[in-house]
Amino acid sequence: MLDETAKGVFTIAVTPFLPDGGIDWDSVDRMVDFYIAQGATGLTILGMMGEAGKLTAEESIPVVKRVTARSTVPIVVGVSAPGFAAMKTLSDAAMDLGAAGVMVAPPGSLKTDDQILTYYHNTAETLGDAPFVLQDFPLVTNVVIPTKVILQVVADCPTCVMLKHEDWPGLEKISALRKASDAGARRISILCGNGGLYLLEEMLRGADGAMTGFAYPEMMAQVIAAYTAGDTDHARDIFDAYMPMVRYEAQPGLGLAIRKYTLAQRGVIAHDTLRKPGGGLSAATKAEVDALAVRQADKLRSFGF
Amino acid sequence: MLDETAKGVFTIAVTPFLPDGGIDWDSVDRMVDFYIAQGATGLTILGMMGEAGKLTAEESIPVVKRVTARSTVPIVVGVSAPGFAAMKTLSDAAMDLGAAGVMVAPPGSLKTDDQILTYYHNTAETLGDAPFVLQDFPLVTNVVIPTKVILQVVADCPTCVMLKHEDWPGLEKISALRKASDAGARRISILCGNGGLYLLEEMLRGADGAMTGFAYPEMMAQVIAAYTAGDTDHARDIFDAYMPMVRYEAQPGLGLAIRKYTLAQRGVIAHDTLRKPGGGLSAATKAEVDALAVRQADKLRSFGF
Amino acid sequence: MLDETAKGVFTIAVTPFLPDGGIDWDSVDRMVDFYIAQGATGLTILGMMGEAGKLTAEESIPVVKRVTARSTVPIVVGVSAPGFAAMKTLSDAAMDLGAAGVMVAPPGSLKTDDQILTYYHNTAETLGDAPFVLQDFPLVTNVVIPTKVILQVVADCPTCVMLKHEDWPGLEKISALRKASDAGARRISILCGNGGLYLLEEMLRGADGAMTGFAYPEMMAQVIAAYTAGDTDHARDIFDAYMPMVRYEAQPGLGLAIRKYTLAQRGVIAHDTLRKPGGGLSAATKAEVDALAVRQADKLRSFGF
Amino acid sequence: MLDETAKGVFTIAVTPFLPDGGIDWDSVDRMVDFYIAQGATGLTILGMMGEAGKLTAEESIPVVKRVTARSTVPIVVGVSAPGFAAMKTLSDAAMDLGAAGVMVAPPGSLKTDDQILTYYHNTAETLGDAPFVLQDFPLVTNVVIPTKVILQVVADCPTCVMLKHEDWPGLEKISALRKASDAGARRISILCGNGGLYLLEEMLRGADGAMTGFAYPEMMAQVIAAYTAGDTDHARDIFDAYMPMVRYEAQPGLGLAIRKYTLAQRGVIAHDTLRKPGGGLSAATKAEVDALAVRQADKLRSFGF
Repeated sequence: MLDETAKGVFTIAVTPFLPDGGIDWDSVDRMVDFYIAQGATGLTILGMMGEAGKLTAEESIPVVKRVTARSTVPIVVGVSAPGFAAMKTLSDAAMDLGAAGVMVAPPGSLKTDDQILTYYHNTAETLGDAPFVLQDFPLVTNVVIPTKVILQVVADCPTCVMLKHEDWPGLEKISALRKASDAGARRISILCGNGGLYLLEEMLRGADGAMTGFAYPEMMAQVIAAYTAGDTDHARDIFDAYMPMVRYEAQPGLGLAIRKYTLAQRGVIAHDTLRKPGGGLSAATKAEVDALAVRQADKLRSFGF
Repeated sequence: MLDETAKGVFTIAVTPFLPDGGIDWDSVDRMVDFYIAQGATGLTILGMMGEAGKLTAEESIPVVKRVTARSTVPIVVGVSAPGFAAMKTLSDAAMDLGAAGVMVAPPGSLKTDDQILTYYHNTAETLGDAPFVLQDFPLVTNVVIPTKVILQVVADCPTCVMLKHEDWPGLEKISALRKASDAGARRISILCGNGGLYLLEEMLRGADGAMTGFAYPEMMAQVIAAYTAGDTDHARDIFDAYMPMVRYEAQPGLGLAIRKYTLAQRGVIAHDTLRKPGGGLSAATKAEVDALAVRQADKLRSFGF
Repeated sequence: MLDETAKGVFTIAVTPFLPDGGIDWDSVDRMVDFYIAQGATGLTILGMMGEAGKLTAEESIPVVKRVTARSTVPIVVGVSAPGFAAMKTLSDAAMDLGAAGVMVAPPGSLKTDDQILTYYHNTAETLGDAPFVLQDFPLVTNVVIPTKVILQVVADCPTCVMLKHEDWPGLEKISALRKASDAGARRISILCGNGGLYLLEEMLRGADGAMTGFAYPEMMAQVIAAYTAGDTDHARDIFDAYMPMVRYEAQPGLGLAIRKYTLAQRGVIAHDTLRKPGGGLSAATKAEVDALAVRQADKLRSFGF
Repeated sequence: MLDETAKGVFTIAVTPFLPDGGIDWDSVDRMVDFYIAQGATGLTILGMMGEAGKLTAEESIPVVKRVTARSTVPIVVGVSAPGFAAMKTLSDAAMDLGAAGVMVAPPGSLKTDDQILTYYHNTAETLGDAPFVLQDFPLVTNVVIPTKVILQVVADCPTCVMLKHEDWPGLEKISALRKASDAGARRISILCGNGGLYLLEEMLRGADGAMTGFAYPEMMAQVIAAYTAGDTDHARDIFDAYMPMVRYEAQPGLGLAIRKYTLAQRGVIAHDTLRKPGGGLSAATKAEVDALAVRQADKLRSFGF
């Protein structure tokens, strides 16, 4: 079961599709193995970047089943839904299938502090014993969650064990949360998103790791390992080497197609297919990704990787 | 099957719940009978005001089954979904169960004319032969659909047979669409929402009727009947008599609770329960509804109703 | 000076323009006289419906000067601005010219409770001694202000003396604010907007009157007078007689053109011109307004008005 | 006068303030000299990052006067305003004072293709002969401008001579615009924003340079120079060396404080003051900027800079 001590890299998994839009189960298996081999300490499936919204309810369960059966690391399942009934159905099924916890992003209709707080009270009640991750991603959800609301959720809901942090800018929020736990608030795990673009600074501020799906997940593992070992300079060298690609993949909307293209190029998934609506990459974009990949490999080689 | 000639009142049905949140099947039956008795020429289920988003996929199908089995008028099923796979699953099931057509509102992520057009191209392809209603409700969807985009959808997608019109203000849009069909564009059915607050003017502009769920659906039937019979003055008298209540029920968010309260008071549904998140009415609100209902009844009596 | 005891009707004044877009000073004078003759206990100028955003800084001051010089009732001046420097410049000038107070709506960039609170702290500091009205109009500003934030502003900022209430739905907010003042919070004036569409219920909840610009301001004065005199039934009769027009004028965006058309028809302003961007009315819209005006006059006559 | 051939680096200038919020004229002069010395081929003042919204109308003119008097390169003045009257007042004054052109971002109320097009038609008419830059920055304006709308503005408005491009993702848009001009559309200048985070790829797609305010403007000048000279590898080396800082400064909202801090550290402006609302940097943030600056200097030294 997921708890407040979770750290490292929880890779946000893609959902591999066949060219006809069906789920590519072989690629699912290969992807799970790959992520773990690259240092994932957990996996998050059916998130936004897992194209969860494009799956039917009937399709989601088998994905959870396949991944939990294959994985040797804990699985977090995205269960955000327009209503609590659908959220509960998926969460219960996921936990039964061996998921370690679930993740919930707020719906865009929430406007005030109290509305957000009430929503997570209801969420916690709906989910019962399942540990949950509060996803804080205003760029996509349009819901700005103040630090004090997060702290109130943490105080009120013992099953809230992790923050998926991707507010932007969000470094001060990490510092404020850590300061609050130093002062007695329950300390939950903070894993950071945003494609890894601020990973080094996030660790400096007190994050426990990353929860993001950059197509070279070894970057996150290596940066965190070096940082944790006290070698911040080495962590920065690795971080900087990947940064041009991290930045390029961080383009909203387009980023998932770039990520799947790279994962396909790396042989992890068989096809870079996105379900509709969601297009492919232009030749110019592919050329730019390819050029970045070549330089990145060169730079890493120069470090002895 | 729903087609461009549909007119009259397609009542937006609520979904009746038991106090524990379960679906109240007896009330479903009673409600269907009531709406038809009050003059509905069709029913629309699983719309926004049917709390569709709060049902699981597994719950939606039985609702469709129960209503289509009971109804003697055509049924439109709301199938808006975050992804096309879920939309197709529900639409196929609904049509198999005897629905006359389906309704699709655009997701809030659509920003430009071409994005909206492409979305409805994909929708039409996804739905196959099922006739569909384009729901145009910017106040809730945050998607503003220009008249020319609607006309392009009509031109490109023969299965788009109806507009659920609730742009606000939207009277000029009705005029523009009718002018376009006078000039040769395919003429689709236009049924109007907004709780009926502009029904008289909508008819004057060329609408074919109403698709809305005001708790006194006889108002829409009577106004349309009088207007269609050429007695606009009588239509206005009825319209004005109900207007204080129409206006009160039109309060966004709160309106559904008011509607369910009234339907329960009228004995149509057993409970005014909304699924979470969605609260009940304060005593002050109930008193205001009650006062409006008394005056409304008095005024109608003075007309000889 | 505006204070917490303000009540009655503060009419939201239009800004009359000549056909070439220049300010029509003769109409300004006539309008001031008309509003007062129809029962205004105050006037609010340079609000959203006063097309304040379309005036230059150089044009705003003379408008304030002309109106304050002419008026025998207190003047509130809208001073909302992208920055505090511009807000201060206009507020200082307005107060020097004899305005009774100023009004400030929040900028759309505010997202959280604390951001809103801080904004009004800064506003109060910026405005100095000038009494100010907090404008709460989420439909247009996109800023949802919780009751507890309003109460905190009232507690922290003694110069906040009035709420322009036009949250929608917003009746429960009035009740909550009055309950809080019954329990010891400072009681500020609450004048309501929304074109008057909920005026009767707003009074029932504890509002002190209206601050809105419906083109028949006598409606608000008469409804409030009857209600205050204890004759709620008569208040409802008047309210209901005007409601079809109130509702029609309440169409967002279009409403101002309808209002100016009516004011021009009534001989109050010489032209129904809106400054660009802002178009005129179609023939169909004018016909609808005219039909409503005829029925409204008939109904009022039947009451002996 | 600004025209379609503009290229290179138009630096987005900050507005230097004294600690008390007054304009720091000495720093204005020093800043102009600095930007030009670092390779600016133009300057853009009173943009979003110039805190234009926080200045009064009376303050804006002297800023234009001071900068145009001092500068040896063309000046573009941001004239975005809530209404056309204020836009015209500032634009006319700026052009009289020797500005080369003006820049206009769309107001957030624009929703459809035609609304955007009409807005720029009105803008062009309002501005008269003044050449103008269309600012395309959806992250901040919330207005998504499709490529075809930009092309229509270019076709309809001869005075639209430049696109400030900062759609995100936006590389395909540059390609589409260049493809259109290859096919006969008027070719306007495209200068890119987004803090320079995609500068290399923007040049590859056909941009003419950068219009952004990164606190090391020499980066943009050097990257563009190397790229233009055909040495893409060298351009990438420089680009990558600055990227960690570019990324850090790109944090929305916070970025301007970081930029001013850096400019103050570099001795360009005397104070890193932002006008209210707009706070300073935490010690942690300053330490992160400092660490990035040290590494950046080391890396540049290793290239022989």
